[in-house]
Amino acid sequence: MTDDDELRLHRWESHADLPLTVVALVFLVAYAVPILDDHLSPKWDRAYDVATWASWLAFAIDYVVRLCLARHRAAFVRSNLLDLAVVVLPMLRPLRLLRVLALVDILNRRAGSSLRGRVGVYVAGSMVLVLFVGSLAVLDAERHAPGSNIHTSGQALWWSIVTVSTVGYGDFYPVSTTGRLVGVGMMISGIALLGVVTASVASWLVDRVRQVEQGAQAATRADVAKLAAKIDSLERLLAQRDAPKA
Amino acid sequence: MTDDDELRLHRWESHADLPLTVVALVFLVAYAVPILDDHLSPKWDRAYDVATWASWLAFAIDYVVRLCLARHRAAFVRSNLLDLAVVVLPMLRPLRLLRVLALVDILNRRAGSSLRGRVGVYVAGSMVLVLFVGSLAVLDAERHAPGSNIHTSGQALWWSIVTVSTVGYGDFYPVSTTGRLVGVGMMISGIALLGVVTASVASWLVDRVRQVEQGAQAATRADVAKLAAKIDSLERLLAQRDAPKA
Amino acid sequence: MTDDDELRLHRWESHADLPLTVVALVFLVAYAVPILDDHLSPKWDRAYDVATWASWLAFAIDYVVRLCLARHRAAFVRSNLLDLAVVVLPMLRPLRLLRVLALVDILNRRAGSSLRGRVGVYVAGSMVLVLFVGSLAVLDAERHAPGSNIHTSGQALWWSIVTVSTVGYGDFYPVSTTGRLVGVGMMISGIALLGVVTASVASWLVDRVRQVEQGAQAATRADVAKLAAKIDSLERLLAQRDAPKA
Amino acid sequence: MTDDDELRLHRWESHADLPLTVVALVFLVAYAVPILDDHLSPKWDRAYDVATWASWLAFAIDYVVRLCLARHRAAFVRSNLLDLAVVVLPMLRPLRLLRVLALVDILNRRAGSSLRGRVGVYVAGSMVLVLFVGSLAVLDAERHAPGSNIHTSGQALWWSIVTVSTVGYGDFYPVSTTGRLVGVGMMISGIALLGVVTASVASWLVDRVRQVEQGAQAATRADVAKLAAKIDSLERLLAQRDAPKA
Repeated sequence: MTDDDELRLHRWESHADLPLTVVALVFLVAYAVPILDDHLSPKWDRAYDVATWASWLAFAIDYVVRLCLARHRAAFVRSNLLDLAVVVLPMLRPLRLLRVLALVDILNRRAGSSLRGRVGVYVAGSMVLVLFVGSLAVLDAERHAPGSNIHTSGQALWWSIVTVSTVGYGDFYPVSTTGRLVGVGMMISGIALLGVVTASVASWLVDRVRQVEQGAQAATRADVAKLAAKIDSLERLLAQRDAPKA
Repeated sequence: MTDDDELRLHRWESHADLPLTVVALVFLVAYAVPILDDHLSPKWDRAYDVATWASWLAFAIDYVVRLCLARHRAAFVRSNLLDLAVVVLPMLRPLRLLRVLALVDILNRRAGSSLRGRVGVYVAGSMVLVLFVGSLAVLDAERHAPGSNIHTSGQALWWSIVTVSTVGYGDFYPVSTTGRLVGVGMMISGIALLGVVTASVASWLVDRVRQVEQGAQAATRADVAKLAAKIDSLERLLAQRDAPKA
Repeated sequence: MTDDDELRLHRWESHADLPLTVVALVFLVAYAVPILDDHLSPKWDRAYDVATWASWLAFAIDYVVRLCLARHRAAFVRSNLLDLAVVVLPMLRPLRLLRVLALVDILNRRAGSSLRGRVGVYVAGSMVLVLFVGSLAVLDAERHAPGSNIHTSGQALWWSIVTVSTVGYGDFYPVSTTGRLVGVGMMISGIALLGVVTASVASWLVDRVRQVEQGAQAATRADVAKLAAKIDSLERLLAQRDAPKA
Repeated sequence: MTDDDELRLHRWESHADLPLTVVALVFLVAYAVPILDDHLSPKWDRAYDVATWASWLAFAIDYVVRLCLARHRAAFVRSNLLDLAVVVLPMLRPLRLLRVLALVDILNRRAGSSLRGRVGVYVAGSMVLVLFVGSLAVLDAERHAPGSNIHTSGQALWWSIVTVSTVGYGDFYPVSTTGRLVGVGMMISGIALLGVVTASVASWLVDRVRQVEQGAQAATRADVAKLAAKIDSLERLLAQRDAPKA
């Protein structure tokens, strides 16, 4: 019976994958447009509000269904804390957009062959999403904050890039608590970006250097093969000697 | 008799581990509260002062006892210079909090299995502690410094994060000598953080690439095993031939 | 017939390599001088304009000829998107200068022996070119932009270096959209630079450590060789014993 | 006769090593004091000037002697371009202090055992020297430059640290050409520092992960050893059988 549950959980997840990605894309629009267009008509404003709530409902239903289907509920909650936080805390709302990264996965399945190639596509996709969402979030938080200096979407995007690259000119910087939390997220992304880029180059270099070494290992393998041949001939020699005696 | 001393030193250290960590936690509170609350009543202020001195006494006693129990005292002093500095120099007082990292060790013993996992937990734990202590130390140094711009705990924490990530907007920066020393510590932590993150990603990438290679090495091992089997059968063949002759 | 085309494409590319590099160098002068000298006489100004257009024509002709000679045209367009963009988008004009990197290739073929040595020469060459072109491009974009602070070639070069090293003092920063696009390019270059420098040091360190290990592998090889010698002597022993019997 | 020259060159270099390091230390004082003390009496000022010139003379004589003793003079000039530049260009005067790094070498020969340990000592020594010399050089260049903001030795040292760590708050930055050249040197040092720190951590991590793997390789070695033992016993068995027959 519990195995049945496990199976049903997996089936639900594979069925819910595409719809939830579509919901995330709808939420992306419903999240982005009211931030980018500060003077939306009340009618449209309400429409985007409804879309936001609908996407929240979809994520909440998905979480509850998965929780009900899970074999060990306590273990499920513990290993899906982020999912819970995204549903419960309205402040983490933009994290719902992480689901859009599923699109990068699809792209990867098509194009990627080597590990480094797939890492590259994933990093590039994540960076575009992080910069986009980070710019929106900081613009939302800072636009009307007292003493702030980020007021247009262009400034927000420029600030995002300057922060992720850890350059940090200081021509723009967040002053509100929410804006600074977004900034912390961008900095962590920047450190991760630097780490992944460096690691990829290092892995490539180490690989190229190692190819020489693998040649040496191949030589050992060849030696072992020669030994095997020698022993084979010994065996045959012994067998031949035995044959006439019989 | 000296071996006895060595044993007694280790016994002392294992017994003193937990109490000293508790003392460090008490000191953490006694260090943090007067900095965070600028308008403490004199009574409480004196209470925190007493706690600070008591924690100093505990660390000093621990050092003296360990020094007395050590076999080679000169060698002990040389390899525990940091412990000595923390006891003797009042300016390095915040470093006493490094002992709180012992808690991370305990956490690690529970959760950690892989090397990279344990490094991750350690780095995350250290970063939280470094950011917390660094913010307190810089706030203490800068709050009443002439011409300073870090005046609240929020600003101090934001400055710490901006510095550790090496972004450095320049919206906040220390101006006093003590504050700048704290800054140097944060920058060193930041460089170390970047190094560890990058190295972990690189090690993961190198590992994944190596798994292919290990397959080739396994093939060599298999070849050697086949050789061994061949030699075994040769041996049996010889033994059989000898048996009838006997 | 298609194989003929393939051959003709390669022949065209090897013949066009040197002329296009010369054209790129001419374009470098025609691009740099009007930016560096703000008060050029109209006659010279027109001359440089003509040179710029001539270089564009050369690149366009090269692209069209290669497109015509390519076996699979759709595949050719897809795998040479950058070349197309450089020809079609006037904004990407400075990227034409990337062809000057061909000179670094020539330098490399002469000097380089080790992989790391060649990477080093390539990185140094690219950095000089990136800093030079980036400084020109940002100066062109910012000099007359409202509210800008980069007005001389010295300031532009200093800004480029500060950006590529990800230090980002904030004493100079771009304010126009074009200038910020140049800034994004410089930041990407900076992250790549950091990655390559770190990776080179890491690869060197890993290599040095590995040399010890290779000693151990050599020992295994020696063991296998000793085994082979043993088996040889066994074989000889058996052969000798058989000889008198015959 | 040329071999004799080669020998004499090496003998000169080993004899000149210590005196030149002493000269570099004297130059360090003669370089530092007039910068740190802006109001030196003319008598002392002249004394430091004489010391500076004397150190220049010592380096120049060393270069000329080595050039005369070198077998292939053109090759010697080509592979010692930095030495030539330090002697000929007064602006590169501070680079003479790089010779002080010879002291780090001596320290290393004493303490160092592991490669990473030696790299660590070297990096720490170089950083102290780079920060010290960079601070002096930037203070010298900026103190009386129009519109500059680095006026005290404390500010210069703080700027150096902020630059090397690539944090770059922008509270201090060079404005003169010489000061900016010093800044470029500091940034290059900073990128190198980041690279070496990251690479050391990566190398350590890769090593630890590899130890597991080496265990597997040891198993292969053990298998080969067992094979060898088997073949030995086979050989003995054959020998024993032959013995009675004789």
